[in-house]
Amino acid sequence: MASTNEICEHLLRTPPPSATAIAYNYLVPNVKGLEGLVRIMDDTGVSAAGGSSADKASTTTEISVFTAATEAFSKANTNCTIAESLERIRPIVTQALSHNIRVRGYVSVALGCPYEGPNVPTSTVTDITASLLEMGADEVSIGDTTGMGTAPRTMELLNALRAAGIANNDLALHFHDTYGQALVNTIVGLEHGIRIFDSSIGGLGGCPYSKGATGNVATEDLIHTLHSLGMHTGVNLEAMSKIGDWISGELGRANASRAGKAILAKLQD
Amino acid sequence: MASTNEICEHLLRTPPPSATAIAYNYLVPNVKGLEGLVRIMDDTGVSAAGGSSADKASTTTEISVFTAATEAFSKANTNCTIAESLERIRPIVTQALSHNIRVRGYVSVALGCPYEGPNVPTSTVTDITASLLEMGADEVSIGDTTGMGTAPRTMELLNALRAAGIANNDLALHFHDTYGQALVNTIVGLEHGIRIFDSSIGGLGGCPYSKGATGNVATEDLIHTLHSLGMHTGVNLEAMSKIGDWISGELGRANASRAGKAILAKLQD
Repeated sequence: MASTNEICEHLLRTPPPSATAIAYNYLVPNVKGLEGLVRIMDDTGVSAAGGSSADKASTTTEISVFTAATEAFSKANTNCTIAESLERIRPIVTQALSHNIRVRGYVSVALGCPYEGPNVPTSTVTDITASLLEMGADEVSIGDTTGMGTAPRTMELLNALRAAGIANNDLALHFHDTYGQALVNTIVGLEHGIRIFDSSIGGLGGCPYSKGATGNVATEDLIHTLHSLGMHTGVNLEAMSKIGDWISGELGRANASRAGKAILAKLQD
Repeated sequence: MASTNEICEHLLRTPPPSATAIAYNYLVPNVKGLEGLVRIMDDTGVSAAGGSSADKASTTTEISVFTAATEAFSKANTNCTIAESLERIRPIVTQALSHNIRVRGYVSVALGCPYEGPNVPTSTVTDITASLLEMGADEVSIGDTTGMGTAPRTMELLNALRAAGIANNDLALHFHDTYGQALVNTIVGLEHGIRIFDSSIGGLGGCPYSKGATGNVATEDLIHTLHSLGMHTGVNLEAMSKIGDWISGELGRANASRAGKAILAKLQD
């Protein structure tokens, strides 16, 4: 398997052709990681917002920084307290912004923690989210890492974020379907006015610090749900379903997308 | 595998002990099937409402009769037109009622047909539902056999049923999770006032006439959702999750319940 730097360099140098702009997002754990990314960008002649000179319209580069909503998870996942993780993140954000690199913050275990249980205080989540935005993060993704989130608690958290003065368009929602609630919670988010939702094709992923955690909600299931509500995503769901099945096969995993599998079964009729 | 009659006789003669009443439901395709059931009930000394004399509180006996919301599915599933299937059902209902046996009607493919597509006319579903209730069916289960149902179309159908004068408490909803919409559609049903939902443990089931169709929504996922909304079901979800995993293993199938698997993973921590 190629190293992160190799993958990063490959994508920056020869971005796959695309009809629409794609934002490649790199997880940056510390300032050194950011410096490495900036060096590769400089070497390959890529500017953050514009893509490579060869294919200006198709790629942008952005970074992700991670923190968590509980001390126990922060310790397990990043080996530091929440406050320490925010202090690690601050210079990354500052430097990224100085290079015009877009920053996405993540708040893990916002709706349930494998160590501290389902009832994560909403005030902790709103405080961390506000800190990330004040540092300059362009967007914060609220992560239900364990999939423990329920419709009522998702609603409560979104109301708390609104009450704290945080705008809907500064937020994304990131649901795992571990308990089958991802799409129900997505509907709660949509009704609240959130329009950015994380997902992974074929439901790939998981979390080593959250036992039994499955991947993000499958992109195919999310897109099917959005289309079923009459929303436009610009995504070709048939093509997406084929890709999800292909990558699941390559990785030797079961395809976790229900809509994807149903669409493919129908195509084979 | 035991024949339906053997299973039926076994359950009627020696119902498994239960703290609460259980309704055993038998699919009855024709009058002959009902006569067979009544004969077994007579032989075993079981009355429909009261259970066997040995265990009066624990069992009741009811029957199911099936029809479909599209002509093409009716032809494939029961080899007759919708009108013919209703005429077959009428004497079954009449005779069942004369024996005090509760009758449940099913309308298959109410939110999408493998042959005729997703847009099944709501008027067809309301007409069939009204016919079944007028014949004397105690309850009609509206079946999304293909899982094509979406939140907006579920809402539209429930509104059409209400407009046709059909009471919520004469209805049940029966969702398959083939496209991942079962719980979203359940929420739509709950908000509309429906309180009876079909499900199957571990998501067992399927439909031979609907390619790619998975089983009913998993009971564990449904119960977890209801509990997450603060509703009381009286079901021990941990015990239910263990049963779902056990029966999936016995049948050599993957456990299709996400909540069930997540709960079991947590218990193994």
